[in-house]
Amino acid sequence: MNITVNRHSSVTIKEQVRLEIAQRIQSGLLEEGHLLPSVRQLSSQLHISLVTAHQVYQGLEKDGLIDAIRGKGTFVKKRKITPIQNTQPPHPALPPFQWQLSIPDYLPRASYWSHSAVRLPPEILDLSTASIHHSLLPLDLLQDSIKHALSKHTRSLGSYSPYQGDREFLEAISHYLFTQSGLTLEPHRLIITNGTQQGLDLFARTFLGPGDVIAMETPCFSSAIDTFRLSRATIQPIPLDHDGMRIDILEELASHGRLKAIYTVPTFQNPTGIIMSYRRRKEILEFAEANNILILEDDPHRELFSAGNGLKKLPPPLKSLDTTGRVIYLKGFSKFLFPGLRLGIMAADGSIYNRLLAIKSIADLGSPLWLQKALLLLFTSPHLTMYIKSLNQTLAQRRELVATMLSRELNPVIYYPQLAGGMHLWLTLPPDLAADDLIPAAHQRGIHFLPGSIFYPAEPELNHLRICWTNLSNEDLPKALSLLCDLLNRALTAKP
Amino acid sequence: MNITVNRHSSVTIKEQVRLEIAQRIQSGLLEEGHLLPSVRQLSSQLHISLVTAHQVYQGLEKDGLIDAIRGKGTFVKKRKITPIQNTQPPHPALPPFQWQLSIPDYLPRASYWSHSAVRLPPEILDLSTASIHHSLLPLDLLQDSIKHALSKHTRSLGSYSPYQGDREFLEAISHYLFTQSGLTLEPHRLIITNGTQQGLDLFARTFLGPGDVIAMETPCFSSAIDTFRLSRATIQPIPLDHDGMRIDILEELASHGRLKAIYTVPTFQNPTGIIMSYRRRKEILEFAEANNILILEDDPHRELFSAGNGLKKLPPPLKSLDTTGRVIYLKGFSKFLFPGLRLGIMAADGSIYNRLLAIKSIADLGSPLWLQKALLLLFTSPHLTMYIKSLNQTLAQRRELVATMLSRELNPVIYYPQLAGGMHLWLTLPPDLAADDLIPAAHQRGIHFLPGSIFYPAEPELNHLRICWTNLSNEDLPKALSLLCDLLNRALTAKP
Repeated sequence: MNITVNRHSSVTIKEQVRLEIAQRIQSGLLEEGHLLPSVRQLSSQLHISLVTAHQVYQGLEKDGLIDAIRGKGTFVKKRKITPIQNTQPPHPALPPFQWQLSIPDYLPRASYWSHSAVRLPPEILDLSTASIHHSLLPLDLLQDSIKHALSKHTRSLGSYSPYQGDREFLEAISHYLFTQSGLTLEPHRLIITNGTQQGLDLFARTFLGPGDVIAMETPCFSSAIDTFRLSRATIQPIPLDHDGMRIDILEELASHGRLKAIYTVPTFQNPTGIIMSYRRRKEILEFAEANNILILEDDPHRELFSAGNGLKKLPPPLKSLDTTGRVIYLKGFSKFLFPGLRLGIMAADGSIYNRLLAIKSIADLGSPLWLQKALLLLFTSPHLTMYIKSLNQTLAQRRELVATMLSRELNPVIYYPQLAGGMHLWLTLPPDLAADDLIPAAHQRGIHFLPGSIFYPAEPELNHLRICWTNLSNEDLPKALSLLCDLLNRALTAKP
Repeated sequence: MNITVNRHSSVTIKEQVRLEIAQRIQSGLLEEGHLLPSVRQLSSQLHISLVTAHQVYQGLEKDGLIDAIRGKGTFVKKRKITPIQNTQPPHPALPPFQWQLSIPDYLPRASYWSHSAVRLPPEILDLSTASIHHSLLPLDLLQDSIKHALSKHTRSLGSYSPYQGDREFLEAISHYLFTQSGLTLEPHRLIITNGTQQGLDLFARTFLGPGDVIAMETPCFSSAIDTFRLSRATIQPIPLDHDGMRIDILEELASHGRLKAIYTVPTFQNPTGIIMSYRRRKEILEFAEANNILILEDDPHRELFSAGNGLKKLPPPLKSLDTTGRVIYLKGFSKFLFPGLRLGIMAADGSIYNRLLAIKSIADLGSPLWLQKALLLLFTSPHLTMYIKSLNQTLAQRRELVATMLSRELNPVIYYPQLAGGMHLWLTLPPDLAADDLIPAAHQRGIHFLPGSIFYPAEPELNHLRICWTNLSNEDLPKALSLLCDLLNRALTAKP
């Protein structure tokens, strides 16, 4: 294990090491039954005292994460949350390859991975995946576009893409962003990515390292947490209020610390669904300029606006207000178009663009050329805008259904916000009820959701859960919501 | 600039910093005209003395890389190698965004990027790109496979892929690897990557960091050098002999240093074309086991075997000889099937598999599901094996053509090996002739090749060049070879 101990932190070394090992076990990186280094080895590997190493293991054992077996060594214990029974046949027993444990790695945690890699049996209604149900996606438009490219752009199957992307495709995307969101982003400011997740990762690899501090809305998309943690930067959680990321907390931080970057999902924040107000957007941008801070803006849900909750129009992306090349803008298409194709874009300016492009070239030499050509027709078609309009009409109805059902069936002590669009709903239970503990019962009833605990970069709040109300069919959604309400209501009354 | 200074290195700190800055300038990461930090800023940023910082800039100025302008500052000078005139219209003048230079990054070099991002005008015959000419690729098989998936796997357009890849596709690939190369790699040992480059990068991010040492064949694929350097590991160059990577040098190193991993392209090594012998493969594997070292085996060219140079059969991949889960195997399909689709695989065992999968999940949440479905038919079709056979018949003829033309037209002081397949040819000029210097004349004549200097992780040898003889059409290849021979012959006689 490569654990970087920060000797200048206010957190004790013992706590740092304990937390790092606990995260690896909880996220499944260290598997059940694996032999951990001895106290002596841990002490020498991390340059910590024998006493500290011993205390770390004592703490982990107390938490039920490891077992020390006299004369044999210290082993990872069975995980607390039982993952759903895998529907696939089990692997043939793997040879143990115990020697591999002597090979250290640079992984700090991958909690999103461990939660989302769970394969749900088909009878479980999935309220966890943030997708649009396939019956609502424009699969016919996608098929037409691909079919067209099959004959028109055959040769692109046999050619590498420029690292930044195909010129024609970049132009089409640029045109789309202008038409749909009023963004002026010329093709030479765009880089094609394999979805937004790659954009996050490219940013983190270019600009974040040990000692750097990145501020992020908390709770927040857990895969972003993993990405920033992998870079060994320090994550500074920033709470949200009704207008988005709290500017007062950012300002207080800036007065006695140095922030390098801010990560934000300003529109339909994941998981809370909050829309950052226009005024807050301006404030965050001014704050970043005054303190020489980069802004990483992640905008995957903008298209999912069904003008609910009294809101007529979404505030513009931060990038459209940025005149100094300070905002790096990520646009994914998985949330309303094609999760199966993994293409997104990242927009940046000046030398920041060049630096991100260099990392993209190292990461994979560029995204698939043919896939870009295959989407040309789609992104230049007037049918795309029509599809987005009609999708939002459908989603507005669904939103009504969700609101009606929850207000009718759910115990009113459970809080959830009113929605103007997006795809998530963040439910808050009373403080003494932990959503993680409800997962086994949820599976027994035939539903799955994400416990709120995975959305926190530091100490988690346990009394939240996230559901996604766009992933199920029209028939299954009401069933799943009823099962959820019943589960939560019973959990409330079953409390001691 | 984030430059990690190694105070225990035998290289002086001045030299380390000079080299790092020089590489950023030469690779285009620091662009012409950019303002560098002042001597005082450099000294304080890197914790080096003012004298050392001053000497670094003196050295860079002497090398013609920077200009110190009194009262204004130190700027990056025009690059020595003029890139080919871009055929695209120039960007509208970008605002300078000079403030961005105050944002440090973690990029050490990206030389492959700067060389390969050059966009060749269409009249230049490209001997540099390592591709198969589209007329030789199975574009019809690809079209059929995609067409089939369009109707059969429509829903996969709207679904995320499991991080490791689609089960059905993994099975098809597993079957293909067994049929084509005799490799037994069950689906649960495979991870789909966005081409081999991503596999290299995932490995480096998981296992390499400052202080780790990776050994690689030298000269070597320059993008692999960039990847390993980005991880801040130390690269140990290992020379090649007729049987591949030299085992005597590896053994000597092991006696007084610690290697963590070996990277090798054992079959048709890039750029030399050398095939590692069966015996050497066994020796390397035994060496790795004896010294607890990982092997990263990169096998993109195995299919390009046209049984030339007296060789009847290729030695098996190292992975097929590996019984302890020590070899991580990378298989790309860009070199003989579809560079425009960027899909490859990585095979690993035990906890090494899990760790690589965790990084894959952070890098991009998995490769496009629909693309995997779109290739199902191709990888299970008997036409694929037939195509590979017929491709190699064609390539055998090309190889003959290359051999005949070079032996007839090229001055015999220029050395090149006899080929048994692959796609590259590594030419060695007399020691006092630098291939980089010939690039402008080559462009004037209408050809492009890669100078050998970019294939070295440390001090480059300048008297080599790499050509790829599979990238041009049947008509263009002889023209390009004639132009190349003429250029090189003239350079020999023009020597002072």
